[in-house]
Amino acid sequence: MKNFLILFFLASFGISTYGQNSFEEPLRIIAIGAHPDDTDQQMGGTAALFAKMGHKVKFVSVTNGDAGHFNKGGGHLTKIRRAEAKEAAKRLGIETYTVLDNHDGELLPTLDIRHQIIREIRNWNADIVITHRPVDYHPDHRNTGILVQDAAYLVIVPNITPNTKPLEKNPVFLYLEDDFEKPYPFQPDIAVDITSVFDLKMDAHDAHTSQMYEWLPWVDKELSEVPENIKERKEWLTDRWTLDISSQVRKALKKWYGEDRGEEIKYAEAFEICEYGKQPTEAEILRLFPMLNNKKQ
Amino acid sequence: MKNFLILFFLASFGISTYGQNSFEEPLRIIAIGAHPDDTDQQMGGTAALFAKMGHKVKFVSVTNGDAGHFNKGGGHLTKIRRAEAKEAAKRLGIETYTVLDNHDGELLPTLDIRHQIIREIRNWNADIVITHRPVDYHPDHRNTGILVQDAAYLVIVPNITPNTKPLEKNPVFLYLEDDFEKPYPFQPDIAVDITSVFDLKMDAHDAHTSQMYEWLPWVDKELSEVPENIKERKEWLTDRWTLDISSQVRKALKKWYGEDRGEEIKYAEAFEICEYGKQPTEAEILRLFPMLNNKKQ
Amino acid sequence: MKNFLILFFLASFGISTYGQNSFEEPLRIIAIGAHPDDTDQQMGGTAALFAKMGHKVKFVSVTNGDAGHFNKGGGHLTKIRRAEAKEAAKRLGIETYTVLDNHDGELLPTLDIRHQIIREIRNWNADIVITHRPVDYHPDHRNTGILVQDAAYLVIVPNITPNTKPLEKNPVFLYLEDDFEKPYPFQPDIAVDITSVFDLKMDAHDAHTSQMYEWLPWVDKELSEVPENIKERKEWLTDRWTLDISSQVRKALKKWYGEDRGEEIKYAEAFEICEYGKQPTEAEILRLFPMLNNKKQ
Amino acid sequence: MKNFLILFFLASFGISTYGQNSFEEPLRIIAIGAHPDDTDQQMGGTAALFAKMGHKVKFVSVTNGDAGHFNKGGGHLTKIRRAEAKEAAKRLGIETYTVLDNHDGELLPTLDIRHQIIREIRNWNADIVITHRPVDYHPDHRNTGILVQDAAYLVIVPNITPNTKPLEKNPVFLYLEDDFEKPYPFQPDIAVDITSVFDLKMDAHDAHTSQMYEWLPWVDKELSEVPENIKERKEWLTDRWTLDISSQVRKALKKWYGEDRGEEIKYAEAFEICEYGKQPTEAEILRLFPMLNNKKQ
Amino acid sequence: MKNFLILFFLASFGISTYGQNSFEEPLRIIAIGAHPDDTDQQMGGTAALFAKMGHKVKFVSVTNGDAGHFNKGGGHLTKIRRAEAKEAAKRLGIETYTVLDNHDGELLPTLDIRHQIIREIRNWNADIVITHRPVDYHPDHRNTGILVQDAAYLVIVPNITPNTKPLEKNPVFLYLEDDFEKPYPFQPDIAVDITSVFDLKMDAHDAHTSQMYEWLPWVDKELSEVPENIKERKEWLTDRWTLDISSQVRKALKKWYGEDRGEEIKYAEAFEICEYGKQPTEAEILRLFPMLNNKKQ
Amino acid sequence: MKNFLILFFLASFGISTYGQNSFEEPLRIIAIGAHPDDTDQQMGGTAALFAKMGHKVKFVSVTNGDAGHFNKGGGHLTKIRRAEAKEAAKRLGIETYTVLDNHDGELLPTLDIRHQIIREIRNWNADIVITHRPVDYHPDHRNTGILVQDAAYLVIVPNITPNTKPLEKNPVFLYLEDDFEKPYPFQPDIAVDITSVFDLKMDAHDAHTSQMYEWLPWVDKELSEVPENIKERKEWLTDRWTLDISSQVRKALKKWYGEDRGEEIKYAEAFEICEYGKQPTEAEILRLFPMLNNKKQ
Repeated sequence: MKNFLILFFLASFGISTYGQNSFEEPLRIIAIGAHPDDTDQQMGGTAALFAKMGHKVKFVSVTNGDAGHFNKGGGHLTKIRRAEAKEAAKRLGIETYTVLDNHDGELLPTLDIRHQIIREIRNWNADIVITHRPVDYHPDHRNTGILVQDAAYLVIVPNITPNTKPLEKNPVFLYLEDDFEKPYPFQPDIAVDITSVFDLKMDAHDAHTSQMYEWLPWVDKELSEVPENIKERKEWLTDRWTLDISSQVRKALKKWYGEDRGEEIKYAEAFEICEYGKQPTEAEILRLFPMLNNKKQ
Repeated sequence: MKNFLILFFLASFGISTYGQNSFEEPLRIIAIGAHPDDTDQQMGGTAALFAKMGHKVKFVSVTNGDAGHFNKGGGHLTKIRRAEAKEAAKRLGIETYTVLDNHDGELLPTLDIRHQIIREIRNWNADIVITHRPVDYHPDHRNTGILVQDAAYLVIVPNITPNTKPLEKNPVFLYLEDDFEKPYPFQPDIAVDITSVFDLKMDAHDAHTSQMYEWLPWVDKELSEVPENIKERKEWLTDRWTLDISSQVRKALKKWYGEDRGEEIKYAEAFEICEYGKQPTEAEILRLFPMLNNKKQ
Repeated sequence: MKNFLILFFLASFGISTYGQNSFEEPLRIIAIGAHPDDTDQQMGGTAALFAKMGHKVKFVSVTNGDAGHFNKGGGHLTKIRRAEAKEAAKRLGIETYTVLDNHDGELLPTLDIRHQIIREIRNWNADIVITHRPVDYHPDHRNTGILVQDAAYLVIVPNITPNTKPLEKNPVFLYLEDDFEKPYPFQPDIAVDITSVFDLKMDAHDAHTSQMYEWLPWVDKELSEVPENIKERKEWLTDRWTLDISSQVRKALKKWYGEDRGEEIKYAEAFEICEYGKQPTEAEILRLFPMLNNKKQ
Repeated sequence: MKNFLILFFLASFGISTYGQNSFEEPLRIIAIGAHPDDTDQQMGGTAALFAKMGHKVKFVSVTNGDAGHFNKGGGHLTKIRRAEAKEAAKRLGIETYTVLDNHDGELLPTLDIRHQIIREIRNWNADIVITHRPVDYHPDHRNTGILVQDAAYLVIVPNITPNTKPLEKNPVFLYLEDDFEKPYPFQPDIAVDITSVFDLKMDAHDAHTSQMYEWLPWVDKELSEVPENIKERKEWLTDRWTLDISSQVRKALKKWYGEDRGEEIKYAEAFEICEYGKQPTEAEILRLFPMLNNKKQ
Repeated sequence: MKNFLILFFLASFGISTYGQNSFEEPLRIIAIGAHPDDTDQQMGGTAALFAKMGHKVKFVSVTNGDAGHFNKGGGHLTKIRRAEAKEAAKRLGIETYTVLDNHDGELLPTLDIRHQIIREIRNWNADIVITHRPVDYHPDHRNTGILVQDAAYLVIVPNITPNTKPLEKNPVFLYLEDDFEKPYPFQPDIAVDITSVFDLKMDAHDAHTSQMYEWLPWVDKELSEVPENIKERKEWLTDRWTLDISSQVRKALKKWYGEDRGEEIKYAEAFEICEYGKQPTEAEILRLFPMLNNKKQ
Repeated sequence: MKNFLILFFLASFGISTYGQNSFEEPLRIIAIGAHPDDTDQQMGGTAALFAKMGHKVKFVSVTNGDAGHFNKGGGHLTKIRRAEAKEAAKRLGIETYTVLDNHDGELLPTLDIRHQIIREIRNWNADIVITHRPVDYHPDHRNTGILVQDAAYLVIVPNITPNTKPLEKNPVFLYLEDDFEKPYPFQPDIAVDITSVFDLKMDAHDAHTSQMYEWLPWVDKELSEVPENIKERKEWLTDRWTLDISSQVRKALKKWYGEDRGEEIKYAEAFEICEYGKQPTEAEILRLFPMLNNKKQ
């Protein structure tokens, strides 16, 4: 019965709209990461796909990225990070990238930051909110996850931060992929083929110079391996980001794209549906992720 | 062996006491919810059963409910909410309903609120403490769950809030039912048939005018469906609260009430035993929930 | 020597510009009060004078005014207060009135609110910042005073809230008048004749219905004296606000307006120069308060 | 004119009521100190006089006194301190002594403690509130002063801690005497002859064993001088507390008691009127401090 | 294949080094518990084994233990606890035992305590960090677990607490054993036979007089059972601590020590690998836990 | 009488010891500023004099200086600042310079930083503690002043941060000079002729490259005036720091050095005695500031 409904949905609604941006209203997606490159890393491809289809994507970094570096720091580093984020947004084709001015490496789930996030979600009039799972590797990621979860119901409550108009409906909240198994592993409820925009995603990564060519290789003790030459380092970056697709995500790709195409997809991003916020049906997922409709692409 | 023990217990202790209020000491139950209607919703029936049997039930709302409304708020709303809570307590027959003066929608697990809760539990000399799971849908529910968990051991430590006499024994801590599956679904360790008091529970719900007929329907965009007429709206309310019993809770009902009665029970409330605090044996559960002894009722 | 300089200044610069709005750049004034009517009460007249001369005035309320009432409260009251503030701004002719979403009656000098204030001052590119003395009668006023003082140097430091461009020069910080004597009485370094705009100030006060006709009379146990009739209550309001000018302020008026006019001024507002921030010379005061130049008016 | 009014007041109201406890309503005084002996030390005599005249006095210690000792501490010390405080209250004849459970030596002016204090003042329905100046020697005293000041207006605001009924009128707030000169010296607006109850005050001090015979002499390196014998140590204590009256307080005593008696008073306590809260006229002071009426005593 | 690798490792590296302390650099282990006896209880044996083999072990108590007692408390109790901890460290043969000065029973995961922990880990130049799971029974244990998890990545980030040199590599983070099943039960990834040092562990426990012979029996209402005689009470203590080994830990012992020896081990301690920090291979585990190499012991 | 005592003191003790470092125990001075150059600026000369006489001086910066710069920041800037501070300490000849790791520009008077300061004062076993007045221009200075004041009594209380041994006597607390008039102007109770070490002070200033040649001139819009040449910029620096001595300080110099020498002193530093902590007699001042004894120098 559920399958029938999906087929019906595809026939009557999904496929016909794809590629035509014929929606009355574009979808509004807000992705809230801890640092000014987190959302790029974990959903840059999906964001580019949304953008290409005429939907409105906003990236938010809850911290200002003023700590994650080995020989820069503070407001000076923040300004570099913000400029890189703006450039990455431009390359992905998304609407905007906001960097909130909270210290990197010191994020706590305080009320005032919860309220900052509620305002971001409300002002974006979001249909979809995406963030870290509260079990990801960095305490800032975990606390971002908690903060966004804590916003999930309150975005519709008019008396909370009452000077910002509440949403009329609770959005769908999604988690970005991570590798952690406890207390339970990431569940790829939605998986997106980003092969067609992977280069674009790498272009955006390339804009994050202070992260991709400086801090992250330094952490991995590979700083000396970063090529000087701009073209070469972009290739080196692409190699680094050509990652295996986990068996669970592969399974999800097959679910959404069919066995054959699902098997062949080279680059993917996956999302888990948060239990807080709206719980979408499969039909609603297809409406919210219209790139999933285009299985013949 | 375990079954034998229960039968033995029922024969020698349980049944003989039921319905007679022949305890030396009535049981003392404290239910700690986030808002001034949460405990009513999720254990109003069980509370009414305890009260009818002569046991002492206290409801506590950790927040003052000053935010959850669309056209009222602040201290003004709190006063309405507190009056509704007092009326609901009266209708359920429980001893008292305390509304703590912490902001609704802004609850954090701070030390001072933890101490408020420790004092409530100690002053009530509680045998049973009931609260939300720290995974429930509203951040205030989650933080209430954390706060009560954090009180679980400290209620017996004399040097914590030393001016309030510590408990001599750690109570049993229980969680209220919710629908969340992650990181693991609610486990109905205890399930109570509330059919005989369901009307009473609806009477108590009816006392929460600002919640049941205003805020909750507004959230569900059903405000226009609320009947004007007092009798009709009570019926509308009863319909809304006639919920399916989950298969897990049904299973628990059969465990505690036997297959046949368990199958027929129309209204139920269920509780999960928290791992912090005293871990009761089944015999102790039967002593603490004497309504479970009356399987022939 | 100092007097000579002032005369010179008046001759060469001050008088010629007055009344002509011939500045290259209008002055930018930001007044930061605790509640959505505080700045109106204590500098509404001066603000109207600035506005009439083409200067840019912004009022900020650090709290959202969600507590100061006897039968309204919370977000509901905030929305009323914000609408009243917007209307008052319109009547005074000032640019804008921002209401920050911090709880009324619970303001503390936290870092996040300090940063809100730094951003307000920077984004307004302020020449003049005006606030409460940290000894005023309401704890929110005192904490607003502390918060603005604590912003006084940091507005020029680029690494503080680095995503908001710092000011290139420290503004002059001023205090609003109050009656407190300890640890030292208010010093009217600057006093402004607001007689010509007093009616306008009363119009703005009249916009603050929930304050002027409800809360403040309630506090004074005069609620029953507020006339129903719109015109009458405006007169009642004007009577209430026709206050004696203190001897110290009278002295300051004479200093700035000359003995004769200073003696006759009916309505005035006065300001004390805060020791933090730029310390203006008298010439600079005359440039920053161009209405003081017009002594023959 | 003012003198005339006072004379009139004395003739028509003050003297006639003195000594007869003929008030319709006894006065209600609440003294809020930082530690469980502070108010005893600085107004124990005045409290005893109030109590003898049938007025209701409550002492509050904002901290639980769990730190100020050399070989005891924590909850264990708190319990000793609370028992001593209760005994001292009994000896002074006052109604009650409440010890709030906040850590000694770690008091900060937080919102939750401000709210504790607001509730204490409201629940006592206080006419007079007495506390430390925010410049006293111990950080807990200074922060207690700030906390009580911050309560001064809010006790009448219904939306602040809305579940506790607000006062209908703002009480008079007074400061206890201290020796500090900056930013300005203590001003003895009111001075009370406590000679007739000095022994009672010493009895109350004697109840504070852990303070008077242990901690305070230890701080002064005089522990070895404390007599073992109960009677002797009481005498030693009395000697220690027979302090010179400052010239300012002597001046105030003469104002209130007349030159002759004022000159001879042996033991006194003095109070400064806080600028927040009600500003009493002299007539009101005489009504609030009825022991001042008895100049012929 | 995995087994082969382990055998290879044992042959080429593990066994040869065992018992000879021939490492260039001893291992550096830091165990961070909530109270000044927690790490002793749950890894005292393993610590003694490390110490015997020449490795450097540091115990840290995040709180100062100033609350967990029935008739002592505060700084007075802290000093007793610290002295006991130092003595226990001496008996176990470990390098040092640091007691941080945070209140017992009031630990929250604040930034300043996170930074204290980061500094402890960095200054110890730790290879292994061991702490409580964030689900253990006491809120201080849970918050210690959170705090150490939150340090797990930041110990290598130079801009976090920049005046303390960051680690060059992320250590392995491990959890101490507990009995809790939710959200998932403790996983004994590593299990250590401590039979040979169990007496030493009991000697260390015996040093914790205020815990082992006072507080813990008081909690269990067994205070009267504690023998007076020093030798007898040590025996009583040893009986109390002779605990059954869980089936999961037994399984782990067999994995690491072989079926036969694994079956016979009388006393054991077990550890779960935290997903944050370095994820060790089995070979690395054998290098980090060299006592596991000695299967023929 | 007081004068006699001073003369006696000079004759019998002061002069004879001067220049001989014949004290049994050198004096121990701790100066606690907000940033890693504040104490250098305001008491570098006095510190150098103490050091030359064999006394032990420690400088502490409560913040890590990670914000005050225009193109550097964060941990990166902190490391520069700390190295500069160490070099400055070396040039002044003082024992040590500790930089605490609290954010610059964000200092609040929290308990954990109060405890950091208490430990610094105790561990230094200080006779003299010197800090900012709580009215200085920068919020970090004001909060440092509050923090040190709040430590003033608690340094002798054993139960506060009980793992750090309390001082046996309360030190003298002093304030550094500032220009602020409200609520009362700086009172130079002690003034020190630093002419003989002014060059040394400038050497120390010169070590603070990132402050003296970068940040401070940038603030004053004089960055372009800083000479490139090392010798020239040192001269430029010396010019900048050749400040007028205020009439109050001049008066104090005459008091301590006599009219004639007092009149001629070219460079001076002055201190106000804080009312918290020990209140020294003049004789004690002369013992604590032995350089004042050498009036014939």
